[in-house]
Amino acid sequence: MSFTNQKLHFGAAYYPEHWSEERWSEDIRLMKAAGMTVVRMAEFAWSTLQSGPDNFNFDWLERAIDQLAAKGIDTVLGTPTAAPPAWLVQKYPDLLAVDESGRRVQFGNRCHYCVNSPEFHSASQQIVKAMADRFGDDPHVIGWQIDNEYNRVCYCERCQSLFQQYLQDKFVSLEALNEHWSTSYWSQTYSAWEQIPIPIGPHNPGLMLEFKHFISESYRKFQLMQLDILRPRLKPGVWVTHNFMGWYNGFDHYTLTKDLDLASWDWYVGSGYHDYLQSGAAHDLARGFKRRNFWLMETQPGNVNWSPLNNSLNKGEAHLMAWHAVAHGADAVLYWQWRSAPGGQEQYHGSLIDQSGQPRPFYAEAQQLGGEFKIASEWLAGSVVKTDVAMLNCYDSRWSIGWQRHHHDFDYVAHFNNYYRPLSAGNVNVDIISADEPLDGYKLVVAPSLLILNNKRIAQLKEFVKNGGCLVLTLRCGMKDDYNSLLPSRQPGSLAELAGLEVEEYYALHDPIPVVGDIFNGSSRLWAERLKLLDGNLTIPIARYGVCNGWLDDQAAVAVHQYGKGIVFYIGAYLDEFSQQALINHILLTAGISSIKTPSGIEVRTRVRTNGEELFFVLNHTRAEQTFSWPWPGVELLSGQVRTGEVKLAPYGVAILSKNAGDNPA
Amino acid sequence: MSFTNQKLHFGAAYYPEHWSEERWSEDIRLMKAAGMTVVRMAEFAWSTLQSGPDNFNFDWLERAIDQLAAKGIDTVLGTPTAAPPAWLVQKYPDLLAVDESGRRVQFGNRCHYCVNSPEFHSASQQIVKAMADRFGDDPHVIGWQIDNEYNRVCYCERCQSLFQQYLQDKFVSLEALNEHWSTSYWSQTYSAWEQIPIPIGPHNPGLMLEFKHFISESYRKFQLMQLDILRPRLKPGVWVTHNFMGWYNGFDHYTLTKDLDLASWDWYVGSGYHDYLQSGAAHDLARGFKRRNFWLMETQPGNVNWSPLNNSLNKGEAHLMAWHAVAHGADAVLYWQWRSAPGGQEQYHGSLIDQSGQPRPFYAEAQQLGGEFKIASEWLAGSVVKTDVAMLNCYDSRWSIGWQRHHHDFDYVAHFNNYYRPLSAGNVNVDIISADEPLDGYKLVVAPSLLILNNKRIAQLKEFVKNGGCLVLTLRCGMKDDYNSLLPSRQPGSLAELAGLEVEEYYALHDPIPVVGDIFNGSSRLWAERLKLLDGNLTIPIARYGVCNGWLDDQAAVAVHQYGKGIVFYIGAYLDEFSQQALINHILLTAGISSIKTPSGIEVRTRVRTNGEELFFVLNHTRAEQTFSWPWPGVELLSGQVRTGEVKLAPYGVAILSKNAGDNPA
Amino acid sequence: MSFTNQKLHFGAAYYPEHWSEERWSEDIRLMKAAGMTVVRMAEFAWSTLQSGPDNFNFDWLERAIDQLAAKGIDTVLGTPTAAPPAWLVQKYPDLLAVDESGRRVQFGNRCHYCVNSPEFHSASQQIVKAMADRFGDDPHVIGWQIDNEYNRVCYCERCQSLFQQYLQDKFVSLEALNEHWSTSYWSQTYSAWEQIPIPIGPHNPGLMLEFKHFISESYRKFQLMQLDILRPRLKPGVWVTHNFMGWYNGFDHYTLTKDLDLASWDWYVGSGYHDYLQSGAAHDLARGFKRRNFWLMETQPGNVNWSPLNNSLNKGEAHLMAWHAVAHGADAVLYWQWRSAPGGQEQYHGSLIDQSGQPRPFYAEAQQLGGEFKIASEWLAGSVVKTDVAMLNCYDSRWSIGWQRHHHDFDYVAHFNNYYRPLSAGNVNVDIISADEPLDGYKLVVAPSLLILNNKRIAQLKEFVKNGGCLVLTLRCGMKDDYNSLLPSRQPGSLAELAGLEVEEYYALHDPIPVVGDIFNGSSRLWAERLKLLDGNLTIPIARYGVCNGWLDDQAAVAVHQYGKGIVFYIGAYLDEFSQQALINHILLTAGISSIKTPSGIEVRTRVRTNGEELFFVLNHTRAEQTFSWPWPGVELLSGQVRTGEVKLAPYGVAILSKNAGDNPA
Repeated sequence: MSFTNQKLHFGAAYYPEHWSEERWSEDIRLMKAAGMTVVRMAEFAWSTLQSGPDNFNFDWLERAIDQLAAKGIDTVLGTPTAAPPAWLVQKYPDLLAVDESGRRVQFGNRCHYCVNSPEFHSASQQIVKAMADRFGDDPHVIGWQIDNEYNRVCYCERCQSLFQQYLQDKFVSLEALNEHWSTSYWSQTYSAWEQIPIPIGPHNPGLMLEFKHFISESYRKFQLMQLDILRPRLKPGVWVTHNFMGWYNGFDHYTLTKDLDLASWDWYVGSGYHDYLQSGAAHDLARGFKRRNFWLMETQPGNVNWSPLNNSLNKGEAHLMAWHAVAHGADAVLYWQWRSAPGGQEQYHGSLIDQSGQPRPFYAEAQQLGGEFKIASEWLAGSVVKTDVAMLNCYDSRWSIGWQRHHHDFDYVAHFNNYYRPLSAGNVNVDIISADEPLDGYKLVVAPSLLILNNKRIAQLKEFVKNGGCLVLTLRCGMKDDYNSLLPSRQPGSLAELAGLEVEEYYALHDPIPVVGDIFNGSSRLWAERLKLLDGNLTIPIARYGVCNGWLDDQAAVAVHQYGKGIVFYIGAYLDEFSQQALINHILLTAGISSIKTPSGIEVRTRVRTNGEELFFVLNHTRAEQTFSWPWPGVELLSGQVRTGEVKLAPYGVAILSKNAGDNPA
Repeated sequence: MSFTNQKLHFGAAYYPEHWSEERWSEDIRLMKAAGMTVVRMAEFAWSTLQSGPDNFNFDWLERAIDQLAAKGIDTVLGTPTAAPPAWLVQKYPDLLAVDESGRRVQFGNRCHYCVNSPEFHSASQQIVKAMADRFGDDPHVIGWQIDNEYNRVCYCERCQSLFQQYLQDKFVSLEALNEHWSTSYWSQTYSAWEQIPIPIGPHNPGLMLEFKHFISESYRKFQLMQLDILRPRLKPGVWVTHNFMGWYNGFDHYTLTKDLDLASWDWYVGSGYHDYLQSGAAHDLARGFKRRNFWLMETQPGNVNWSPLNNSLNKGEAHLMAWHAVAHGADAVLYWQWRSAPGGQEQYHGSLIDQSGQPRPFYAEAQQLGGEFKIASEWLAGSVVKTDVAMLNCYDSRWSIGWQRHHHDFDYVAHFNNYYRPLSAGNVNVDIISADEPLDGYKLVVAPSLLILNNKRIAQLKEFVKNGGCLVLTLRCGMKDDYNSLLPSRQPGSLAELAGLEVEEYYALHDPIPVVGDIFNGSSRLWAERLKLLDGNLTIPIARYGVCNGWLDDQAAVAVHQYGKGIVFYIGAYLDEFSQQALINHILLTAGISSIKTPSGIEVRTRVRTNGEELFFVLNHTRAEQTFSWPWPGVELLSGQVRTGEVKLAPYGVAILSKNAGDNPA
Repeated sequence: MSFTNQKLHFGAAYYPEHWSEERWSEDIRLMKAAGMTVVRMAEFAWSTLQSGPDNFNFDWLERAIDQLAAKGIDTVLGTPTAAPPAWLVQKYPDLLAVDESGRRVQFGNRCHYCVNSPEFHSASQQIVKAMADRFGDDPHVIGWQIDNEYNRVCYCERCQSLFQQYLQDKFVSLEALNEHWSTSYWSQTYSAWEQIPIPIGPHNPGLMLEFKHFISESYRKFQLMQLDILRPRLKPGVWVTHNFMGWYNGFDHYTLTKDLDLASWDWYVGSGYHDYLQSGAAHDLARGFKRRNFWLMETQPGNVNWSPLNNSLNKGEAHLMAWHAVAHGADAVLYWQWRSAPGGQEQYHGSLIDQSGQPRPFYAEAQQLGGEFKIASEWLAGSVVKTDVAMLNCYDSRWSIGWQRHHHDFDYVAHFNNYYRPLSAGNVNVDIISADEPLDGYKLVVAPSLLILNNKRIAQLKEFVKNGGCLVLTLRCGMKDDYNSLLPSRQPGSLAELAGLEVEEYYALHDPIPVVGDIFNGSSRLWAERLKLLDGNLTIPIARYGVCNGWLDDQAAVAVHQYGKGIVFYIGAYLDEFSQQALINHILLTAGISSIKTPSGIEVRTRVRTNGEELFFVLNHTRAEQTFSWPWPGVELLSGQVRTGEVKLAPYGVAILSKNAGDNPA
């Protein structure tokens, strides 16, 4: 089944259970006036929907759905399992998770459950089944969200037993486990499964990695349980999602999204202001979960309440951000939240309606967006993001590096973004996909710090290059196997043949060191690898280290190797911003990828319509008026006007351009 | 009963139980030589006074009281309940408090008790009764201190049950509680009282506030239990107090001081040096607890031992600080402590006598003070601080803001001091009183961040302005009700009519923003509110924001509104020091309040004698000689000399001036 | 028995249990090629040596010892008690230590044991006895290391009972304990031994000090248990050691080294680079544990893995550091480790062999060292470090100061180094010995912050000065007794007679203050003492404080006092680097101690051969070529060439010079 976007949705999270029903009509009137087409409801309403073991109350929710529908507003329903109610917790006290310090978490925040609690599973089944029975075929419920922002890790004894069982299922014999984890080290050898702890703080890297896999599998099972209840009860075309949290690293998102129809995520800036070169990657990550468009299930209307400093976005900034999300593949934007409850932990969070029930100043900005989404909706129906460039993401590598940073400032995502940013600044669309995905159809694949290798990955990368692809490998590549154990060869392991070199030594850097190249003259910080070229004339060093610690002086830092019909770059340095941009430009050239050039701060993204037509999103991420050169006589969708040549963009301005002046929605 | 000050007392905390009795006479000789008139004893002596369930020993204490009395030194007795002894703890292990992490606190520090332990109450009754029976009518025991610096919060299961009981008593029905706390939010709905937790870390704002009330009530009950034992046993005129800790916010000090005769507090600078514009507020706060003069029960002789950096005050600085306290309403100054025990946690604390039993260098400074206090005592008997200006303090508002700062640098007390400092720098006496006190007799009332409103407060404030008062409301005003729930109207809630405006939006500020006013041209940091003027020509904006985040550009920041015979300022900006001083000067002028002008660093305070005569304390808080212009030919009390015109003040110098050259103690 | 060094050993930690036996011969070949003469093995191999209660397997270890021996490489064996295996922990769960927060530590790191667990003792006896029976008379096992880097502190109930028993044994009566600890303070009086807690966080200083003594004694007992098993089973000449961690302060190292034959320690730079003026003190400390040469049992080959920033040492730096260790008395240098296991917590630690089994770049540097050690070995056999200068170290003083820093930046070791550094920069050999050691033979004794005094120390210091010694006492001297209780006299207690002064007051300094002296014009930071000269003309102030806090203005800061045939300096200030160097130079002159002068960064140390001949180690700690003036025509040992006059040292260069051109190994 496919869940193609037929509409660009606009909406908010709505909690009618916080208000008397007399208020609802005014809320819905204001939603309608803001151009909203969808609300998400019920994901924390368990205690209202079920006030005791046998007391269900869905009538109010049905009334809310109906009243919204009467004004043309669809509903996404959340299963309320992120908030098991007090009566349930009182009945099953060990339904509460145990935290890392060994203490039961208290009732009254959210996600207080142990995801492996059988009592929690069974109570969840009951509420989800009842909701699905009631609303599964409701014509106005277009999608479902399971739970809310999974994040809790439980350290209870039950989880420990289940973890041991998980290990037994995976390794079968203790001999195998002891071998993979090198347990003769520090006398860690296990002679019984029950001896194996849940890791608290630093522990054996193999054990730590399996615990992350166990957490991922635990959530997947919990989610599958809900999916298995929902699916038979939903009418065709209704999708199921979960709202993820961008680069959150508590579990493997590829494991969790496998079973869902749609990916969605919650985007918050928190403190400070929007940085599009960073958030673009988060959108592309979400798009990569299912390799299709996603929903922005929550985003901030002005400000949040949970940051140390909850400043508001500037006027116009949130509007721009919504279009930026769409440009990167969002098919819906929902603000969190419509209005704050009088009490509860999030009283200060941004919203569209204030405590008096009147629109806040931000409402007007949302209203503008609602109008524009309506115009753009027809044009964008079914359109997708296409690109020649993929970046490979690997949670195992990220965790392994995160636990053993070697340099405290080394961060997997920051290093990843050091590659993403210059690509994005060059207006190149990027797919961010799992390192286990097939690579067909790409011209350029960038694999930042692909620490963990296995045969499948090696084979896919070889095949890709052999057939003419351009591959970029970077520092920390090819050091470990799937068990977080050192490979029995130097970096980059079995990719050495592909890269035409091996890493003789890696260095955490106390201070930046010089790197001199054909294309740039810069420096490396945090990390440097000493490359040993293996493949005679076919491996060409294009940058070397300057005088520094003696070990690296004049050694190769970056090298290029021809392999099959393709080419491989190995980048052993962590380059400064300017050198990195120069290098990436060179790589794009090598890979035969071109893109539109814009002044700094102007982003261009494209979505391709079902008829093949490209739509260009031109986004001014600066607070100054900018001018942008547009070569074709095209229609600007939002204004309906023809634009060509020098196009003006207001501060935080947005233009959506087609190449064809006579264009019309198909 | 009134406990009018008949004397300006000077003394120290004395622990005769640390020394053999042979030493006492030398100690008392040195106290006498320093001019001391009082000591505080016994507040940690439980294990010496009662070495087992039935072994009391009060003889040593009686001998100490008598020997001191023989040299004219009075005694204040502390009930020793802050230090329940080891034999008691061994007998009742769950008398020990449980900390936030769930662990029993260990024996050997202080305040290790659970304030709600029935065994602790009963043992406290026994020791307090025995002490009161013995010393209640001792002619040399002039006052009692209950316990010492209350501060422990207990998280044991008994406290949780009692908290649930407290809630049941207050809310009667769970429906009411669920409604006030908006528990449908995050499925927090409670269906049984036993489900309600003690909050650990962030939790429902309503729950958090009630827990603070519960702590306050728990201490009040514990204190009342002791008061009920003491009162019938004390001879007339003997007062009972507790030594509070300035701006400490563990409980509502107005709840705790209600039942006491006298407020006292312990003043420590800790690291660094004295800042009189800050400490003045702490004195005025203490004076406001009972709206009468207070005792400075402890203060530092040079240095403390518990700060990260325990530097000594400069020579002369402590002497000046003692007079500064008196000028703000202290009727006694006691140093902590006379001499350190050879062992124990406070070996490095400042004292008057060193480990060898000889005076430390600081002793000479104390001796000078003792002499001066003797001279001034007659003049100051019965004198009090009077003023036209009140600042309103509210613990509920402070806690609520503290838990939800929105901007991590926003601190209730710092914001409060942003109003206190310019008033104090202008030599204006200030009362700091509970926001629930009547406002009769004031010309100007400043209510910084009065977040929490209720009908009584609203009525009092209206009455005050209607009758001609000048009221200053500030940012974060009128956002919540008594349950820490959002009011169903925009800020400042029902004060909007009074202020002639409402707050359309509030903003935590990432960086300072410009504010341009009639009276100043400055900036706002941390916070800014966008004011919507409601009352036509009667609300006048006197400052607006400059260009910043778009939302605030050119919006009203400060406005004045005439109401009844009075006037209301609403200040939506958090102004820089210079702008704030200009604004406060303008407000003082508007309110018709004048004061003596002095060079920076010179403070003038007044106390009014029973005969109505004003005494002027002129304090040089700088380390340079200063000159001060004195318009009347008055006597300087300490020197007995007539001063007029240009009066010289030595570095850290003090002068106490009357307006009348022929003056004499009444 | 004496364990004179017959050889300069070079080697590494080796873990053959991590590899299949086929690999061993290649490892041993590479060791041999690097010039290695020794490996340490088995200290974490418990689970491999004993896989269950009755399953011992020593054969593999014997084969490893034999194969190494076949290539001339000796073995040091570690008893594996730092890593009790999983099967043992499963059998005795309370063998695991309890941490400060009350939680059992988890299995899988190291030193997870409670050092007082009887089950752990008995299991340790079993494995140590079995190892000693098997390898005690092995001709190739030249020494034994007990356990590994003791560091765990246990807070379990058993430890609490044993601590109470320890106190009962020491104090006999509770009256004595209460008296020594001043427990009438805060009602801490104990009426039963079971009432006494283990201190968690700040507590009574007397209690805290005894707990440190208890920990020291607990480890000593555990170590003695192993020694008693080993000694009867080892062939003559085989020594027993433990590898300590430099200035680690978890226990009294003099208590722990008393029973050992040899001291050894593990030297790691961690982040950053080598600072020889600091590490010299750590070597001299280790040499002082047994007052004889020591082993460097572990040191870093390039980089570690446990620092926040694990940079590598510069090329040549580790080589220089090895010679620096030898110059300070090391008779062996072993790198940790030879090669990393594929798994386990230390995958990123530096090693000589990389994950592929090939030498890392660092191997070549080690190889150079191996060659040089071979040349130097004959010359250095039996040679020792001699000096006229001792510095006194006292763990009790250090702990006491550490718990009550008074100024958060005051650190006992940093203050100690403030004396060590100028001595070392002046190329003066220094012994660092326990403050309880006899002082015969020294000309100059420096006792930094000798806070704790007792009669023995006082007598020894008096005797030393009376007989002509030069003694340097410093701030914080003579404040407390052996029970961490204040002495009943001013600082420096009974040393006042010796110093000719007493300390009237001590001050933690908020900012540095001026100190003006005969010899320097500088400043004091963190601390200043006001000195009262007692002994008329015989106490000469040589520096005074400038204008600062009033109390110290123009007071004596440093004074000299003649006593008997000797002289005493009392230094009440914490001088800046330059003033301190000037003062130390003056003191050296006064004490009649001369030394070779070198450019900054060039260190000269001497070792004296059994024939009395001095060997000079000249070490260039800079990265630039340096020239050094050598007055004698002497042989440079490593090159065999005669050097005289201006001798050139390469960057990080080393020269070992004799005074005699015709010199030859004896």
